[in-house]
Amino acid sequence: MIDRTSLSYRDAGVDMHRAEEGLQGLLRHVRGTFAHRPDLGRVELPIGFFANVLRLGENVGLAFSTDGVGTKTIVAQLVDRYDTIGIDCIAMNVNDILCVGAEPLSLVDYIAVAEADPAFLEEIGRGLAAGAAEARISISGGEIAQLPEIIVSERPGRGFDLVGTAVGIVPLDRLIIGRAIVPGDVIVGMASSGIHSNGLSLARKTLFGTAGLDVTSRPPELDQSLGEELLRPTRIYAREVIALLAAGLAIRGLAHITSDGFLNLCRFSSTEVAYRIEWLPETQPIFSLIQRLGGIATAEMYSTFNMGIGFCVVVAAHDADRALRIVAELGTSAWIIGRCVAPDASHPSRSVAVLPAGLVGSGHDFHAFG
Amino acid sequence: MIDRTSLSYRDAGVDMHRAEEGLQGLLRHVRGTFAHRPDLGRVELPIGFFANVLRLGENVGLAFSTDGVGTKTIVAQLVDRYDTIGIDCIAMNVNDILCVGAEPLSLVDYIAVAEADPAFLEEIGRGLAAGAAEARISISGGEIAQLPEIIVSERPGRGFDLVGTAVGIVPLDRLIIGRAIVPGDVIVGMASSGIHSNGLSLARKTLFGTAGLDVTSRPPELDQSLGEELLRPTRIYAREVIALLAAGLAIRGLAHITSDGFLNLCRFSSTEVAYRIEWLPETQPIFSLIQRLGGIATAEMYSTFNMGIGFCVVVAAHDADRALRIVAELGTSAWIIGRCVAPDASHPSRSVAVLPAGLVGSGHDFHAFG
Repeated sequence: MIDRTSLSYRDAGVDMHRAEEGLQGLLRHVRGTFAHRPDLGRVELPIGFFANVLRLGENVGLAFSTDGVGTKTIVAQLVDRYDTIGIDCIAMNVNDILCVGAEPLSLVDYIAVAEADPAFLEEIGRGLAAGAAEARISISGGEIAQLPEIIVSERPGRGFDLVGTAVGIVPLDRLIIGRAIVPGDVIVGMASSGIHSNGLSLARKTLFGTAGLDVTSRPPELDQSLGEELLRPTRIYAREVIALLAAGLAIRGLAHITSDGFLNLCRFSSTEVAYRIEWLPETQPIFSLIQRLGGIATAEMYSTFNMGIGFCVVVAAHDADRALRIVAELGTSAWIIGRCVAPDASHPSRSVAVLPAGLVGSGHDFHAFG
Repeated sequence: MIDRTSLSYRDAGVDMHRAEEGLQGLLRHVRGTFAHRPDLGRVELPIGFFANVLRLGENVGLAFSTDGVGTKTIVAQLVDRYDTIGIDCIAMNVNDILCVGAEPLSLVDYIAVAEADPAFLEEIGRGLAAGAAEARISISGGEIAQLPEIIVSERPGRGFDLVGTAVGIVPLDRLIIGRAIVPGDVIVGMASSGIHSNGLSLARKTLFGTAGLDVTSRPPELDQSLGEELLRPTRIYAREVIALLAAGLAIRGLAHITSDGFLNLCRFSSTEVAYRIEWLPETQPIFSLIQRLGGIATAEMYSTFNMGIGFCVVVAAHDADRALRIVAELGTSAWIIGRCVAPDASHPSRSVAVLPAGLVGSGHDFHAFG
């Protein structure tokens, strides 16, 4: 069980379960709208996958998804640096679009600011452009909303919220949602670049609250300041995933590891398997530091942070080595971290076990097994 | 000239010129991203039109646009009513998608909340669904971000920002951006439902600040409370525009009248014309009230509010009557409000004159003429 006496994401101001309940109320209304487009624009997936897909033609699917960078904007203000958070915005959206097997094409950004300072906005644009170059997408539009009465500034004049919406294209007969996953398939994990854009509320509460550090602190575990570490841009997995798809490998599932960590694997639609993470690379220092300073339960860590793996690829066993080679050629660290297994009583269908951490879970919660 | 001693939008916390300057800094970076997609996903329009268009195939264009409801969320909190603002979110996006001649297909919403209260989110969902039904689109995804440190609540637990991104489809050879507009073309205006989602900052500052009214006030000019009037949902023009396009009329320009009011006509790409508004229906009481109580210059009113016209259609003169009939059959009030004329010294190319108000302008500013 999660130790609720330890610092949890809920304590840090983000209540995943309440969010989920709120989401259900909203979805009651939203789901009914799918019926408005029975033909052109037909919605191909249920709500809850990484991106949805609209049918634009015989075999033409449009992947469509939106996400923001959350409270990483507060870290940017603490460090007073704004030229990389645009990369996070691109990454959060492009990585979701990739998960249906789509090629990302374009993004529109939405920036809500307390104050529309030109130099500040230009820095945000710099990051967006860098992310777009890495993902090979255009930024075809956007909106700057000046909302001084709505947006709180951590640093005067620098308060903002940053959100993107991306589109991509996928032939409908090559849509990947985990349907074809079977026992024996291999889970390849690609390295994250630190904390990415999830869990920043818990990280800040622990590091800056409980532990009394600040962005200029240089804990011996890190080779840079805490601010620099937390602000490292989310990795964009576009080149890797597109290369894997282009190689014609038997790719059966693609998962962006965001909030909920490895529990994102539960979003695949196959009911024939459970997911077993059997090995993980050495934990990145930032995660060990947060856990130690906050006295945070391992289950909470794994259901909040990416724990070093930013993206998972489920591939047929016979293609696993080729997948690893393709990713390695692009300079990205990747490992076989687990496999898909037949469900049993302790690891039910669509559950995720993380053996190195002694955890099993589904939905939003991990707990210790045994 | 605008009388800067009168209450202006700038005084009310939204500085359009500063926003524009900030936008230019950001755009310096963003524009370069167009080159990343020379072929599939090619960006067909420059930044600044109502929606952009991506090339998905030989003659397949994807319209793509994002917009939020701005500080109308504050009015919703003052009234403590959340079941219609989703309609505004749909309208702001769908009306922009229509402006390129596209059929809107789907929207994803982004809701940033201070607190994810389920009943509150369900009300927002109710409005989104009502808007989607009216626009005949799906809501295929969305994101709820819990950002208690970023979002200010006017009413405890009810602070939010609401943003949408919509997509639509348009054959590239039927893209409408005002290119074909020539002198003699007629401007048809469709009625707005009050203030829509633009100018709420100035409206609140005037009505609740200067004039000391509140949302329960019932000025004699209005047949409902001020809160109800300001919260009236933005009109969705999808049925009307789609009917006009389907009828094969010579539709040459489509403009969503948002902030900047009739100056939105300047966004059309034709350089052969100036726009002359020659007649307008009686000013809706909410606008007269705001102007009177705030002592606001007419130029400021017309560059901030829609002034009763929410959407303009530029149509060849020979099709104007048919256009009016088609819209009237759908129960929407529409009028011939002006025409496109050859530019001259006092009305340069792409400028807008509003004769009933004695104004001429371009960009973001109207001024009195003569």
